[in-house]
Formats: sequence, C-alpha cells, structure tokens
Amino acid sequence: MRQDLLQPVRGMRDLMPDEAWRLRFIEGNARRIAELYGYEEVITPVIEHYDLLAAKIGEENRKRMYVFEDLGGRKVALRPEFTASIARLVTSKMAASPKPIRLFSFGSLYRYDEPQMGRYREFWQANYELIGSKKPEADAEILSLTNDFFRLLGIKNYFVKINHVGILRGIFGSEGVAEEGQNAVMQMLDKRDWEGALSLARDLGASEKCLKTLRDLIEIRGEDRNEILERISEAVKGCQEAIDALNNFKEAIDLIEAGDVKIRMYFEAGFARGLEYYTGIIFEVYVPELNIAVGGGGRYDRLIEVFGGSEIPAVGVAFGVDRIMLAMEEQGINVSRPIGGRVLVVPADRVVLAEAFKVAVMLRENGIPSEVDVMGRSLSRSLSDAGRRSITHVVIVGRKELSEGKVVLRDMRSKIQEEVKVEELPKRIYFGLSPNVS
Amino acid sequence: MRQDLLQPVRGMRDLMPDEAWRLRFIEGNARRIAELYGYEEVITPVIEHYDLLAAKIGEENRKRMYVFEDLGGRKVALRPEFTASIARLVTSKMAASPKPIRLFSFGSLYRYDEPQMGRYREFWQANYELIGSKKPEADAEILSLTNDFFRLLGIKNYFVKINHVGILRGIFGSEGVAEEGQNAVMQMLDKRDWEGALSLARDLGASEKCLKTLRDLIEIRGEDRNEILERISEAVKGCQEAIDALNNFKEAIDLIEAGDVKIRMYFEAGFARGLEYYTGIIFEVYVPELNIAVGGGGRYDRLIEVFGGSEIPAVGVAFGVDRIMLAMEEQGINVSRPIGGRVLVVPADRVVLAEAFKVAVMLRENGIPSEVDVMGRSLSRSLSDAGRRSITHVVIVGRKELSEGKVVLRDMRSKIQEEVKVEELPKRIYFGLSPNVS
Repeated sequence: MRQDLLQPVRGMRDLMPDEAWRLRFIEGNARRIAELYGYEEVITPVIEHYDLLAAKIGEENRKRMYVFEDLGGRKVALRPEFTASIARLVTSKMAASPKPIRLFSFGSLYRYDEPQMGRYREFWQANYELIGSKKPEADAEILSLTNDFFRLLGIKNYFVKINHVGILRGIFGSEGVAEEGQNAVMQMLDKRDWEGALSLARDLGASEKCLKTLRDLIEIRGEDRNEILERISEAVKGCQEAIDALNNFKEAIDLIEAGDVKIRMYFEAGFARGLEYYTGIIFEVYVPELNIAVGGGGRYDRLIEVFGGSEIPAVGVAFGVDRIMLAMEEQGINVSRPIGGRVLVVPADRVVLAEAFKVAVMLRENGIPSEVDVMGRSLSRSLSDAGRRSITHVVIVGRKELSEGKVVLRDMRSKIQEEVKVEELPKRIYFGLSPNVS
Repeated sequence: MRQDLLQPVRGMRDLMPDEAWRLRFIEGNARRIAELYGYEEVITPVIEHYDLLAAKIGEENRKRMYVFEDLGGRKVALRPEFTASIARLVTSKMAASPKPIRLFSFGSLYRYDEPQMGRYREFWQANYELIGSKKPEADAEILSLTNDFFRLLGIKNYFVKINHVGILRGIFGSEGVAEEGQNAVMQMLDKRDWEGALSLARDLGASEKCLKTLRDLIEIRGEDRNEILERISEAVKGCQEAIDALNNFKEAIDLIEAGDVKIRMYFEAGFARGLEYYTGIIFEVYVPELNIAVGGGGRYDRLIEVFGGSEIPAVGVAFGVDRIMLAMEEQGINVSRPIGGRVLVVPADRVVLAEAFKVAVMLRENGIPSEVDVMGRSLSRSLSDAGRRSITHVVIVGRKELSEGKVVLRDMRSKIQEEVKVEELPKRIYFGLSPNVS
C-alpha cells in the first residue's frame, strides 16, 4: 500500500494510548462538571443537514465545513460545532421541556482549517448550553462552570477575555446598520483587524460619531473592572441600546464577583467572536503558555428562533479538549495513567494452557487486569517480554505446583518469586481496583 | 427553517439524556473490560483515506461508505469499521512495538445502510484487536473477553454463532479458486443465500466434489460440539487445508471449554462474514430477542500485510453498542440513571442572588449537584418547577435566615422543610457522591 495512506489524512491524527487516556481523563472531568451543575448529556449525530449547520455559523466557518452529498442526494455536512444541533433539539424533541434546559455534549467536530499546533481538522469539545433564561445569573453560571472545569483539571493561570457583544451591536443597531453588516464587522473584530472593521463600518454608512465610539471601544482593555466599565460607559454615552447592554454586562460581572466565582477576567471592549449568533456576553479562555483559546462561549438569545420561530434565550460554553491537552502538557500537569498492576499468566507448557486461562479468569473476576501469554513463548522469553512491558507480576502455571493447588508468583519489580496457593493470588496481587467484575 | 431540517438526517439519530446515559454506561463497561484484559485505548480519526478503508472491507460495505473529496481534493471517507485504522497504526506508529499488541477503540462509525430497528447510518462500536499471535489461545482470549463483556452488562441468554472460515477457504483454495472468487462466495454465505453461493462456486470452476462438500457443510449446524466437529471432519475428508483449519478450530474450542469460558456456542459450518479479510475463526453474538447480531469478530491473519508488507496475524471483536442498548431494553435490564440528588438553590429575592451563588458553589465543592434558579421565578413557582423535574432538595436563601447564618432546606420528597446552618447543608443533603471536586 502507498506509504502516504499509512498516515492519517492531513489535519487528522491518531491518539496513542497515553494521549487517548488524557482525552478520556478530560472527558470524565467534563462529565463530572456537567453532573455537578445539572447539565444532562445528549449525543447528536456528526452528520447534519448542511442548511441547519450553515444557518448561523458565520461566513468564515461556513467555507470551512466538510460538505458533501450522501448516497440519497441529501446535502449534508460534518458538524463544525454543537450549538446548531442543540438548537435543533430544543425546537423539536424538547420543545415541551420545562425551562431552563441544561445540556451537555462531548464529541468530535470538523473544520477544514489550516493545521497548526493545537488545531486539527478533527477536534474534540466539551459543550454546555443553558437554555431558556435571559438573566445575568445564567451568564454567571456559565462562567462559574468554566472556572470549576479548569480548576478541576488543575490548569494554572487561566483567565477569560470577556466582552458583551450587545454593546457593539447596540451602537450599530442605533445607526440602522443591518444585521448582516454587523456580522461582517464582528468577523473583522474577531480577527483583530481593527482598521478593516472601521473602514467596513464606514462603508456600511456608520456616522462619524459611531466610528469614533467604535475606535474608543477598541482601545479599552484591561483587568480593572471599575475603570473599564466606566470607560465603556463614557464611550457609549447617548446610545440607549448600548447602555442597556452595558448594564446587563455589569449585572453579570457583579454577580460573578459577589458570588465567589474566582475567575480572572480580562476585559476587551472591541472583542467579538467569529460565530455570528452571539447577542450578549462573550468570552474566551486562555492560558499564558498558548496563544489560542482553550475555550469560549457566550449568549445567543436569537439563534433558537431561527430554527423554531419563537425566541428562546440561551448561553453556552465549549472547551477545546485538544488545546487543553496541550496546555496541560505545557504546564507540566501530569495526568499519565496510574501505574496499575498488570499480570501476565504463563503456562510452563501447553498441557496446562487451560489451567492458565482459568487463573486469568479468576484474577479478572477479582478485578485484577490479567493477560495469558498468547505467543507460545518459553518461560524465559515470557519473562523478558514482561520486563519490556508494564507487567508487574508474572504467574507461572506448572504441572508440579498445580498438583498442590499452587502456582509461582513473581514480582517483576523486586524479582522475588514464591509459590502461592491459587486462591490466595488476588490477595497477594492487590492493586486497589474494584474487586467485582460480574 | 424548513421542518425537515429539524429532524436528524435520515439514518442518524439523537440520543436523549436517558439514552446517552445508557450509551456511556456501556462505554464505561467496555473500557473496564479493556483494562482487565490489558487492551490499551487508541483514538483514530473518523475521516480516513478512502483507499485505506476500501482495501479489504468487501464489495457490499464498500458501496455503502460515505465517500467524498475534502477541500484539498483528497478522496476520503468516514470509517465504516475500526480494523483498517488499527492495521494502519500497527504498520506505522506501532511497527516497532513488542507483540502481542492489544488495542481498544470506542466511537462512531458510518455506513449507508437501509435504516431499520437497531441499524443506523451512524452507529457505535467497542472494538478490541489482539495483534501478533496466530495461536488458538488468542482466539480463545477474544471469546473470553466477549463473554465477560456481555456478562458484565447483565445481558441474558446470549450465544455466539461460530465457525472457522479457513475450512471453507481451504476447500476452495485446494480447487484453485482465487481469493476474489472465494470472497464473492463468502458474501453470499454471509447473506445466507446458499443456492447463490453454490451456483457461483460452480461458475468459478469448483468441482462436483467441492460443491458436495460445500452443500454438506451448509447443512451442519447445532450446539453439540463433538457431533458438529465430527461431521465437519467427515465432510472435508481428503482436503488437507480444510483439515488443518478444522484442527485449529478444535484447539481453540477445546481451550475455551477447558479454560472455564462459559460461553454458549452455536456451530454453523456454512457461516461466513461480509468483511472479506477473515481467515480463521469467525463468530457473531446474538440474543434471542433480536434477529441481528450484537457483536462479531474473527481472525484476520492476512489483513495487516496488505497495509505493511509483512504478515502479522491478528484476531479481534467489535460490539454493536446501539443493538446492545436495544437488547438491554428488550430484556428489561434497567440501567437508568441512579436517582442521585439534585439541589435547586432559590434566592428569596434578587438582593441575595450572590449569596445563593455562594451556597451552590459550596455544595458543588462538597460533591452535591446544585443549580441556582436562573429564571428569576418567585419562590412558589420555583417550588412547583422543582417538583416537575428531578430536584430532590430546594435550598431557600432569605435575608432573615442569612442574618443568622442559616438557610431553609426543603426535602421535595417528604415536603419537610427546616432551617439549617449553611455549613451543615452538605451533611444534611447526602447523596453518596464523592465529596471532592477541587
């Protein structure tokens, strides 16, 4: 077979055992956070209708979707995010569910981006959506959850870059700039192309006053909450829509602080996100070691109505598992697999192979990971093989010892070996695993 | 949005919370079995090179793959099974790994089949591959693992339909029927199209003796191991290749029985599987309630050489998670989520909202799932909402009680409520969850 076929498709990758273990570790913690906050897991398909996924994803992301026709001629795509699928659920199967609805998802997503460190074309996210509340306490809950998630993983020095896109939209809205135009400006702000955003706003007919406000907002950034909110308030003076948004922002921030959510916040009044459905608070999570976000979210009060007709406010967050794995590595957070015990059972000759099987069956029933040699190797080769792998104990099954109900147990670390009664093996090989399989 | 876009694409489906919980329950058990048998998890991409996936999948499955060009013009497909990806790993990144290699995978797969009960176009499998051994003890290990997996899930009355495809291939091989021809016959046998298989074999130039042998084999089925093996032996008399295969089959069966693997076996000498890479023992797992297999596997000693050049024997098994969920339902196996506790914290008015947040933060740190009301509801509406959901306790945070360091705790089941000191809440709401989040 051609050598290039033996590599993953460009942008895809294989997670080898240690990496797979770390991904599952993060997944387990993400699920634990979901449980603690009352988010129920749903699993939606990787393949969705293109028109559903494309509706509000934003131009940039739309161009990067994996789109194709299935054998029935349907135009479908691989999901580039969870939110469209969740919005679909909320307006169909869950239309009658009492609000608020809290949903958790975990899985792989697909975007045809240029691969780079921490960015793959197949990537993994843990996703949380809180649906049905437009109150700032819902925003605060999502930030509290974000904080607990990163804390639980042991990530250090993380912070959220935060803004309220309603302030920006308020300014344009009061000038009569249509939503599509606003979206285009947001995309430029997302890429930190300030000049592009300003000149596009001018082209869209924004007044000089509006442009000045935007220019002022772009300059406002920092960690001093009072100073920042004061400066924003100054910048948006006279624009009621923006003032309302700012007050809403303040309420959420106050609650986060007064409610003991100890998350470091970096304010940036010109910050927007590429997904065009955000309407309120938006944020991204960073660690100092990486220049890409390890998570992000925000409020999207007008997305669900696109799918279902009636307005259902919502706020959500997604964590980028691949990048979190990278962050943990950069920070030296050791989540390698615990050195559990692993037993290799070796029959001294083939006559006692079935007896070796029985010993392994019994050990597993006692919760002890056990393999039987399947290579037909000699005892000495089996022992040297065990030494190369993470085998902690070798059990040698021989005819002579068996006749006395015994086997030989060898501790691979101490190199000590002794005869042990078969039924006493589990006690002698104890790893702290749960003692019940059946 | 068009109503049809609010339904999953045909053949796909959403797993709602109870279903998602059951899938994760099966996944957890599958991972536990992997651990007990020493199988390490790897995660390979959903998108692979079409030519890799198509190499040995068999004509039927090849036609049902989701194939498309990515934006870079690569012909790719969504994986319809795990084995090709695992074979790719074994011949690339793991080429130097000591044998045996034991690998576990869990994830979603894609086939454009006609949807029916238990069959979806996106489906889930737990997959185990034991690579590097051609010994019958490796076959026996896979069947032992299969047995423990279904036993651990509490599935009742499962049995394996079992055969050795080397017996069938031996007969055709000794007649000079080429591999492609053999594969076509196997596909017909897989579909239980006996007459089609016989007439195709005739077209391929099989002798009358060979056709008679095939006809005899097709008739041989049942649970009586000795009788079946005897009859096969009679049928294949004179064909050394088939006799060798039969002896190999016997060895594995003997070991399964003598090694205390208590799995019910139904022998069927005309049974083949659609994947064309099998060379030895093959089996499928059934429960009486379903007429589709809930798992299947076999030996494929010549697949890996297609990818990497050198012959590496292997045997594996995959369990169909969707069908297992169905089987558990049919058998009334209750794995609904444990009734854990869920607390709703309700501020008596907005002035104490931040205090309500603090109480929830503290409860979660004590491992107790807690929500704060985010709907701004009155106390009585919050209580009636809590009653409609699975909330077990409501904590009411009011100014008067707070001034004494207390809150009101209401048990939703007994309807009893009383004032409790804030720091005593976790003790009073105990659910048996682990008491540490941070």
